[in-house]
Amino acid sequence: MVPKDYPRVIIEAVHPQVDGGRFPIKRVVGEKVSVSADIYQEGHNKLAAVLKVRKTGTKKWQESPMTQGDNDRWYGEFSVTAIGRWEYSIEAYTERYLSWVDEITKKSVPGANLKSELLEGLVILRQSASEAKGKAQTRMNSIISAIESALAADDWHGAADLGIDSEMRELMAAHPDRSEGYELTPALGIMVNRPITRFAAWYEFFPRSQGPDPDRHGTLQDCIPRLREISAMGFDVVYLPPIHPIGYSFRKGKNNSLVAEPGDVGSPWAIGNEHGGHMALEPKLGTWDDWDRFVATCRELGIEIALDYVMNCSPDHPYVAEHPDWFFHRPDGSIKYAENPPKKYQDVYPLNFGTGDREGLWNEMLKVFLFWIDKGVTTFRVDNPHTKPVPFWEWVIGEVHRKHPEVIFLAEAFTKPKMMRLLAKAGFAQSYTYFTWRNAKHDLTEYVSELTHGEMKEYFTGNFFANTPDILPPILQFGGRPAFIMRAVLAATLSSVYGIYSGYELCENEAIPGKEEYLHSEKYEIKVRDWNGAPGNIVPIIARINQIRRSSPALQTYNDVLFLGSDNPNIIAYAKMNGDRSDIIVCVVNLDPFQTQASTIHIPLGTFGIHGDEQYEAHDLLSDERYRWGGPTAYVELSPAGKMAHIIKIRRA
Amino acid sequence: MVPKDYPRVIIEAVHPQVDGGRFPIKRVVGEKVSVSADIYQEGHNKLAAVLKVRKTGTKKWQESPMTQGDNDRWYGEFSVTAIGRWEYSIEAYTERYLSWVDEITKKSVPGANLKSELLEGLVILRQSASEAKGKAQTRMNSIISAIESALAADDWHGAADLGIDSEMRELMAAHPDRSEGYELTPALGIMVNRPITRFAAWYEFFPRSQGPDPDRHGTLQDCIPRLREISAMGFDVVYLPPIHPIGYSFRKGKNNSLVAEPGDVGSPWAIGNEHGGHMALEPKLGTWDDWDRFVATCRELGIEIALDYVMNCSPDHPYVAEHPDWFFHRPDGSIKYAENPPKKYQDVYPLNFGTGDREGLWNEMLKVFLFWIDKGVTTFRVDNPHTKPVPFWEWVIGEVHRKHPEVIFLAEAFTKPKMMRLLAKAGFAQSYTYFTWRNAKHDLTEYVSELTHGEMKEYFTGNFFANTPDILPPILQFGGRPAFIMRAVLAATLSSVYGIYSGYELCENEAIPGKEEYLHSEKYEIKVRDWNGAPGNIVPIIARINQIRRSSPALQTYNDVLFLGSDNPNIIAYAKMNGDRSDIIVCVVNLDPFQTQASTIHIPLGTFGIHGDEQYEAHDLLSDERYRWGGPTAYVELSPAGKMAHIIKIRRA
Repeated sequence: MVPKDYPRVIIEAVHPQVDGGRFPIKRVVGEKVSVSADIYQEGHNKLAAVLKVRKTGTKKWQESPMTQGDNDRWYGEFSVTAIGRWEYSIEAYTERYLSWVDEITKKSVPGANLKSELLEGLVILRQSASEAKGKAQTRMNSIISAIESALAADDWHGAADLGIDSEMRELMAAHPDRSEGYELTPALGIMVNRPITRFAAWYEFFPRSQGPDPDRHGTLQDCIPRLREISAMGFDVVYLPPIHPIGYSFRKGKNNSLVAEPGDVGSPWAIGNEHGGHMALEPKLGTWDDWDRFVATCRELGIEIALDYVMNCSPDHPYVAEHPDWFFHRPDGSIKYAENPPKKYQDVYPLNFGTGDREGLWNEMLKVFLFWIDKGVTTFRVDNPHTKPVPFWEWVIGEVHRKHPEVIFLAEAFTKPKMMRLLAKAGFAQSYTYFTWRNAKHDLTEYVSELTHGEMKEYFTGNFFANTPDILPPILQFGGRPAFIMRAVLAATLSSVYGIYSGYELCENEAIPGKEEYLHSEKYEIKVRDWNGAPGNIVPIIARINQIRRSSPALQTYNDVLFLGSDNPNIIAYAKMNGDRSDIIVCVVNLDPFQTQASTIHIPLGTFGIHGDEQYEAHDLLSDERYRWGGPTAYVELSPAGKMAHIIKIRRA
Repeated sequence: MVPKDYPRVIIEAVHPQVDGGRFPIKRVVGEKVSVSADIYQEGHNKLAAVLKVRKTGTKKWQESPMTQGDNDRWYGEFSVTAIGRWEYSIEAYTERYLSWVDEITKKSVPGANLKSELLEGLVILRQSASEAKGKAQTRMNSIISAIESALAADDWHGAADLGIDSEMRELMAAHPDRSEGYELTPALGIMVNRPITRFAAWYEFFPRSQGPDPDRHGTLQDCIPRLREISAMGFDVVYLPPIHPIGYSFRKGKNNSLVAEPGDVGSPWAIGNEHGGHMALEPKLGTWDDWDRFVATCRELGIEIALDYVMNCSPDHPYVAEHPDWFFHRPDGSIKYAENPPKKYQDVYPLNFGTGDREGLWNEMLKVFLFWIDKGVTTFRVDNPHTKPVPFWEWVIGEVHRKHPEVIFLAEAFTKPKMMRLLAKAGFAQSYTYFTWRNAKHDLTEYVSELTHGEMKEYFTGNFFANTPDILPPILQFGGRPAFIMRAVLAATLSSVYGIYSGYELCENEAIPGKEEYLHSEKYEIKVRDWNGAPGNIVPIIARINQIRRSSPALQTYNDVLFLGSDNPNIIAYAKMNGDRSDIIVCVVNLDPFQTQASTIHIPLGTFGIHGDEQYEAHDLLSDERYRWGGPTAYVELSPAGKMAHIIKIRRA
């Protein structure tokens, strides 16, 4: 059986795309999308191609022409002008008119008989004229008549000239015949997020620790002055661990002890008691009115709220009684608690995503998101998404985005690389990363290059946390204050999205010996600190870093971190630039928190647009010192006792 | 709407595959297919995966287990045991039993209460036992009873031991529960060809030139003694330019002149006259009986016949009268002849693949293939496939293969890289290559590496022609006999499939000045040569090369040509090895046909399995000279006056 029809033009190897179009690429609103593809055909005809884009759900495509480069590669670009889901495609077709122009131009030598070619050309011109309208049609018909007259007078060259004249070319370009074409189907997707997805400084804190007295449970009301301080430090997002009622059964005591003492507050991740579950507020934090005031203060300060989204239930969670079928049951009748042998989490029941009542459970989980969005939450930091089925995330994020495309999901998946990537593909706009453990120059360079240069940058945005309540990395435990400064600069400049967990600015680094967990972890008890007076605090440095980020377009870009050569393995240097290279930042960081380190670093003058013999100013935005640099290298020296890092703005005369 | 179901296991990044499974990979019969994939799941369960393979059209899969490597990558392999289309897939599933074994093993510490875990295990064991049969079921039930007894006696460790014992593991491995699984769909395809697709020496000749007298049209009968000589030179395939009747209208004269003189024989590529078209034999070549004798002689000699397949018609072809709608018509009523301005081919009408009678034309083109297959042709060298729609090729090759999977298609597409690749993907088992123009060491290395190391090796087999009737490359025009030897060795050892066009062995190199076309091209006239007595001929060298190829398994492999370091850009060195490395060949070729060149070449002792201090024999199979080599380098010297190349077999003591 001969196939009914076939693609008349080949469109292949479209870039960007994720897994052959299975998942959308990601952009933020206002960004450009540069698209390229292999487009070709048998034979020698000229081709044309248009890039098509539309918001998903709308009918009309916006089209722009693609241009042909070498080796059958075609290029185009468009901008995404609103948040939400978009789609793009390519339509390519035989350009019969331009093929004819090419042919008749080659044949139009003195004495050549062009009659047949002209007759062929007229067929093409009349076809387009018949589909044109108004003035264009009138003009086309008038030129066609002139060609016919010249042809009748055997003035072949005169007729040909009329047919290939720039006016006719313009008219024909506006009325192409796409009948011999092919359109890429299905279209490729784009998830367009808000700019804050790609540029934000996050601050994580426990509301219950924000009171003045360690023996009193802090309240949302206590948080309000703290929000002002956090805002003053330059943070854009406050991330709250769960703020729901905490279970009593098997509640963990201080330092994760199996038995809680009276008065122990429990882990916020063990959600639910008689006061409610995922859609309730822990009464000790305050009322919904207090919550509304908290939200209002954030709005006033321009701070967004990221809430922890944790799919665990304490044994006391209302779901346990109302929906026992949402949990795993053991043959002995008990509900299975969470464990990762030999570790046991008796205070937590995991949900069974494969339950017979999937309809009920999945929709309830969706309802939780919608509830908090209604309460003013714009971002969810999702706890352990890699232990739930990825198709659930693809579904639930899609459902949320249908109503609320502005909502951002951060995947807290510290797991194997492929699962981390898949979660991002499935819809998480941001992801935690391995940055927290990358300290050596080689490791940082390799990892950040993988994130910001390769395919991953199309769908994965790494939120670089320097610490978390679960992770106090060895470099901070042992490196002390210089390490805290160094890691803050790295996090805040290697990625445009970064975060710290509160206490970082006080260089808190007391760990359980041999582990990377905090001693007296705030997960299990209330901690009260002197936020501004604590000796050795780096509050002013954090504030300065955030201020620099806000004033520098280069540091607001995520992609294409450019690592610079340096001859000392303890000195890492890299540059970031904005699109038009009007802002160039060079960061130089001492990776050794114990010793002074010096290095020559290599300045890519050509990339920066600086002449070989030019002197320019290197302005360290951290220290506000200015250096005069020139030529392809610069010398730097950084020390734990003095400066651990430069964040240098390159200023030309 | 919650999705009805979802894949329980993720299977991604399956290798090999071509364009996400859009096209089949290619193998020859007996070859292994090594498959790998990323296979993973949320959470901590153990997984299992099986590789599945079957001949397309059959129902039953053959399965083999895959094994897990690092970073969620799984590996498996199978062999393809018959020619034709095959398909393969992967099924992966949660291994509930092994997950349980893992869990209970971790929990089985002294004093632990394992009752709940054992009850869970029994559910899994009973499920598999219920689906087992015969002795296995009896045995499983018996162990289950023993576990139940131990459990009743609170002998938890005893019960656990029975459940995780090697006997139970074997029984459970044979009766896995795949209910929580996912099977990759659609399956991926394989085109399995005959070994001659990957290992053959081709010889192209014009039957009409095989007579003793240039003034007499040679016949198929004249070819028979020539076939014996060609066979004696070691060729496996004879490739014949078209042998159909040749048109008279606008017949080209000698040296492609526009006007033929009386007696000029015309180009065989201008097919068709009153004696018939694509399914007729040029009467001057003989009768069908002569053809049958030609075929019989080939069979006797073990030579296969490749016929040129040319989709052109002369104006005198019967199709022109019978199916005028298969051609392109101009507005002036004439049929469009082939042209590529300013070049005109008035003796040839191209076919219009987009004709309204596509059903008629495409099926007729299929009929031509089937006709010649019936006449004993096993291979088609397809002329200019890149000027016809690729979907036609995919369809017609598929149709031929449904009845005749043994048939081989060679794409004569000297065109842009992407089209060459696409034609191979669409079904051409072999392709002409750019080898003909690659002379510099860097270019050869890069190109052959691209062909034999990267993705292309999954679907593209390069047939390395040293010359063709259309291409007398400059290196042969100017390099003379040393260049002919050098290029023959390169063609015959860089690829396992190679070819020459007759006259090569006589070092014929008279070109039209400034072009790479032969002067007095055989395309337009009959040429009679002294095949064995011509001075300077390289017949014995060609025969020797082919003999070496036949005796060396290493030279019969296509993939993974290993280039060796050499410190002289005019000396290229490379190794080929068979699968078990029992045959190791090192080729060293002087790329300079004018000067003696010497170089140290680097011997990868580790790859060859040779010890650092070992002496071994380097046996030059071309000259039959033997050298004693040792250590990681060897010195070679090659000269136009003496040897241009070594084909060295490495022999260990």
